[in-house]
Amino acid sequence: MITIVAKFTLKAGKKQEFIQAVTPMIEGSRKESGNVSYNLFEDIRNNNILTFIEEWKDKGAIDFHNQTEHFLTGLDVIKELSENIEITQYQKL
Amino acid sequence: MITIVAKFTLKAGKKQEFIQAVTPMIEGSRKESGNVSYNLFEDIRNNNILTFIEEWKDKGAIDFHNQTEHFLTGLDVIKELSENIEITQYQKL
Repeated sequence: MITIVAKFTLKAGKKQEFIQAVTPMIEGSRKESGNVSYNLFEDIRNNNILTFIEEWKDKGAIDFHNQTEHFLTGLDVIKELSENIEITQYQKL
Repeated sequence: MITIVAKFTLKAGKKQEFIQAVTPMIEGSRKESGNVSYNLFEDIRNNNILTFIEEWKDKGAIDFHNQTEHFLTGLDVIKELSENIEITQYQKL
């Protein structure tokens, strides 16, 4: 299993637009057979920081995901709305 | 529920020492009634980065956790073994 933590620091005032843009991405991702979980979180102390925590069955599942339309469409928008992006892939110890 | 992502960039060569130091902390934390899950992950691309993803029932559970001996003892050691520490508390959207 691979866990992805994808942290976005949004440009000021872009939160609602961000959430709208990622909603189809969340729904589409959860339907992929290689997805285990896919959730969006907000930093309690700074609500301009939004983070996905995603669990995927294996590397193949992520490779597939990265080619889906819901991912590519969402990614374009969230890149534009973000000031800083930090994506890390993890394996459990 | 509150999710904590605690990311540690270790000083060179300190990984085994870090894992040894956090093992009692992991075991103790999982036994706390306010803990939902508590897992340690390794960055797939940089195995000097170790991250806890922790789920807690509520703020009271975290306040209690922050006073436990297994947490305070572990924290002292991991502070010493880390070059950079980034801890974020999240709520699910």
